[in-house]
Amino acid sequence: MEWSLWGVKIVHVMNAVYLDGVGMTKFGKSPRTLTELFCQAAELALEESATQTVDALYIGAMNPEEFTGDGNIATQVVDALGLIGIPSLRVETASSTGAAAILAGFQAIASGYYRRVLVLAGEKMTHLGTSATTSILARVIDKRERDCGATMPALAAMITEKYRKKFRLSEKRLESMLCAVALKNHLNGSKNPLAQFQKAITREDYLGSKLIATPLRLYDCAPITDGAAAVVLTSEKTDVRLAGVGQGTGPLSLQERDIFTSFPATSRAAERAYSMAGISPRDVDFAEVHDAFTPFEIITTEDLGFFPAGKGGDAVLDGQTAVDGPLPINPSGGLKSRGHPVGASGLAQVVEASKALRGHTLIKRAPKRALTQSTGGLATNNFVTILERADAPTVQNLWSPSPVPPTAARRHPLSTRIAAEGVVETFTILYVTPDGFLPPLALALVRDRHGALLMAQGEDNTQLKIDQEVYLRRVDGVYIFTVKSQIQKVQQAFMKLFRRKPATKAKVDGHGELE
Amino acid sequence: MEWSLWGVKIVHVMNAVYLDGVGMTKFGKSPRTLTELFCQAAELALEESATQTVDALYIGAMNPEEFTGDGNIATQVVDALGLIGIPSLRVETASSTGAAAILAGFQAIASGYYRRVLVLAGEKMTHLGTSATTSILARVIDKRERDCGATMPALAAMITEKYRKKFRLSEKRLESMLCAVALKNHLNGSKNPLAQFQKAITREDYLGSKLIATPLRLYDCAPITDGAAAVVLTSEKTDVRLAGVGQGTGPLSLQERDIFTSFPATSRAAERAYSMAGISPRDVDFAEVHDAFTPFEIITTEDLGFFPAGKGGDAVLDGQTAVDGPLPINPSGGLKSRGHPVGASGLAQVVEASKALRGHTLIKRAPKRALTQSTGGLATNNFVTILERADAPTVQNLWSPSPVPPTAARRHPLSTRIAAEGVVETFTILYVTPDGFLPPLALALVRDRHGALLMAQGEDNTQLKIDQEVYLRRVDGVYIFTVKSQIQKVQQAFMKLFRRKPATKAKVDGHGELE
Repeated sequence: MEWSLWGVKIVHVMNAVYLDGVGMTKFGKSPRTLTELFCQAAELALEESATQTVDALYIGAMNPEEFTGDGNIATQVVDALGLIGIPSLRVETASSTGAAAILAGFQAIASGYYRRVLVLAGEKMTHLGTSATTSILARVIDKRERDCGATMPALAAMITEKYRKKFRLSEKRLESMLCAVALKNHLNGSKNPLAQFQKAITREDYLGSKLIATPLRLYDCAPITDGAAAVVLTSEKTDVRLAGVGQGTGPLSLQERDIFTSFPATSRAAERAYSMAGISPRDVDFAEVHDAFTPFEIITTEDLGFFPAGKGGDAVLDGQTAVDGPLPINPSGGLKSRGHPVGASGLAQVVEASKALRGHTLIKRAPKRALTQSTGGLATNNFVTILERADAPTVQNLWSPSPVPPTAARRHPLSTRIAAEGVVETFTILYVTPDGFLPPLALALVRDRHGALLMAQGEDNTQLKIDQEVYLRRVDGVYIFTVKSQIQKVQQAFMKLFRRKPATKAKVDGHGELE
Repeated sequence: MEWSLWGVKIVHVMNAVYLDGVGMTKFGKSPRTLTELFCQAAELALEESATQTVDALYIGAMNPEEFTGDGNIATQVVDALGLIGIPSLRVETASSTGAAAILAGFQAIASGYYRRVLVLAGEKMTHLGTSATTSILARVIDKRERDCGATMPALAAMITEKYRKKFRLSEKRLESMLCAVALKNHLNGSKNPLAQFQKAITREDYLGSKLIATPLRLYDCAPITDGAAAVVLTSEKTDVRLAGVGQGTGPLSLQERDIFTSFPATSRAAERAYSMAGISPRDVDFAEVHDAFTPFEIITTEDLGFFPAGKGGDAVLDGQTAVDGPLPINPSGGLKSRGHPVGASGLAQVVEASKALRGHTLIKRAPKRALTQSTGGLATNNFVTILERADAPTVQNLWSPSPVPPTAARRHPLSTRIAAEGVVETFTILYVTPDGFLPPLALALVRDRHGALLMAQGEDNTQLKIDQEVYLRRVDGVYIFTVKSQIQKVQQAFMKLFRRKPATKAKVDGHGELE
């Protein structure tokens, strides 16, 4: 945008945005209230800042209403900090909320509307049981899938199984890859004094940990955590610049996806962040990515363009993403070992990345540029943020946004009639189930003959594999699948040969339809 | 901010922000889901827009998790609209959430980060009972006050009683003022096809409506409502400009306030919005303000600088704020008659104001400039937005933000010991109580001898008035007050005269302290 006023040429440029002080509570189980956690992180960030005043607060919290009964959290925090008067606004995008707060804070400074803002993000979760926490977390997934017994780990597991199939990995090979992510991140976390888990784990620890949802074990999943993080953003030049930030969304439901083994919400966010910072993936020195589940770290490093599709796991096994490798991933320990207070994680990544750029890092060669990536829900609302040292070689930021291409909705037809048979697109056996569902619970995403995908519960857990043929029934609004036996298949072929019209629909030849 | 690059003088200016299409569902009781309401409003706004594409969504919803069990609402809505891929971010500031979404959208465009954004705000409430709804709404007030039985209407009533006392209004005079607000807004709403209530009310209707919390009647309170609103913001010039926007916060708790009869959160937001738009209150042609309670309209018109303190009620009685008066207030019917889907109201005001600026209004002389004011919680998080027609006489917007003065925390000392007697600062008798509290419930804000304010429940409801002396006890963590009788006062004076040391503390002479 360019115009002229009283002979002065006016070019619209975004204000550059820099990071001043940052702060973070110890992550883990805390006796503090949510507001106290926010205040602690805020005070650390303000203490570290050049000046202690800010123009406004941007606060991220995913679901304080249900976790702790706290409403009006933005006001609660500004009040508790003794800053009543100044604006305070909450943002939320499920588990990427902390990154959303950074984007909102960025826009507030880049516009010139504010000069200094305090970005805060936190969550308080450990006081509730695992079952209650799992239920609250499951609010972020599609209701139809939730009603079937699906949880976040269940959906992540189904993604993982599909990934294994697509890239033709043996079960052992996949297990080694996931284990390598867990071991690396726990090793990194063991050296981070603010991490929830302070010790490295062994391959035996990993293999001995219980199955949550096949193929994911306990050590593939980030823990339940309390914690808060804080970052002061400013238009005054500091040693670290917020060079790029991008957001993208993906379908809420697995049932409506075309792509299972990568997350377009990440690629979209990355595209914008890279173009804004004027860099490409190879200019990134290290990254903090959303490893709420170990396979997500692998998929995400592919979506970010660090490794080709299907090669992220090999990179971990080869040590390429270790702190002493060419591209350290989650040098802070990641969500896996640092902990995952859902609303806080996206901002905690920025805190960790800026600390590393300022020299507090295990990474040997001083990094100049960092990337953080945060995932909201099952890759439904993702963010990528790029930070760089002021002394990093950089292009002058005269970046101007190009219009975002209109996105065609790519929905599968939600037909009202579902064929009574189909094939398994992907599946999991869930061992930690939500209230009201008995473990083990077989869940499969089934593609019916019309091409529609639907989440279904299994009547039996054996013989389950991708591309398996199944029968479908509907009971009390939930789809139930039964694996077709060899005998049934032969029987069916035989009957087709001799009879055109089946005696009863669905039950006999499976060509029927369900309501 | 000004700098030079390759001989071109670069001046940082905010991108101007304009309104394109706007839309709003019918407010009231709707059979639609929250997401469907959002989509309906969005489609109306997009249809009315120059182009149907947007770069991102900014979504306001106050508490969909508890009202309807909806998490990850930003993704749900972008998905339901068939716009998966584009960024979608939720903001929340209690009952001013819709206005917060406008601020976030404004900053997104003003920064140049996006060119067109769809701002949406909505809430779905009517499917729950009044008691459940009241409980969810009470989440926004201070927990200590909530535990005492206080609700939003109770706190609003206490503010009103204090206002009556401060400005020496008789009960009749105050009643006439509040009634005048209700009658005016219902009359305006009766002509707004999207309003929840489509008919005017009479003085008899008003006086016949039940007491909710003295002195407030049912017709002083906004209803429970379903609805959503949508506005497309763009950097391309249109006929209506978003000329100013400001936010301010106020103490969460009544117990920690110095000022009861005006809302500093409004004045602060207004100061910024006026300075940004380069105007003063007298340049405003009409306003939509947050009349969740009729007295709030009166107080707000004073805080906005339209009328001197204590004169807002006279202005209503004199017809100055009627649609044919010099400064129409809530020509759309306001929250009172249009309805109050909490998260939506702040944005609905912007929709109504822009429609009026575009000629769809009851106001006779075509208005050029409108102001909207939204209140979050009990005036804890407020917004002011100024819209003007592109043909309005205006200063060139080279406004640059001045640093916000640091706000000293003005807390009352939260002493651990509370004197066992004090005086009533303000009070109400609550007739519609939250679950677990029997009506009528006397509530008073009591100032103890140390100057600390605390919320207390009354043992008896008679003789209650401001400045009344009371005894205080603490039972199960809740303060209980008893009005001092004349006999007790004489007794106490008598005992003071003859005895220096009381036999027992607190109980006898009231000089004791509570834990």
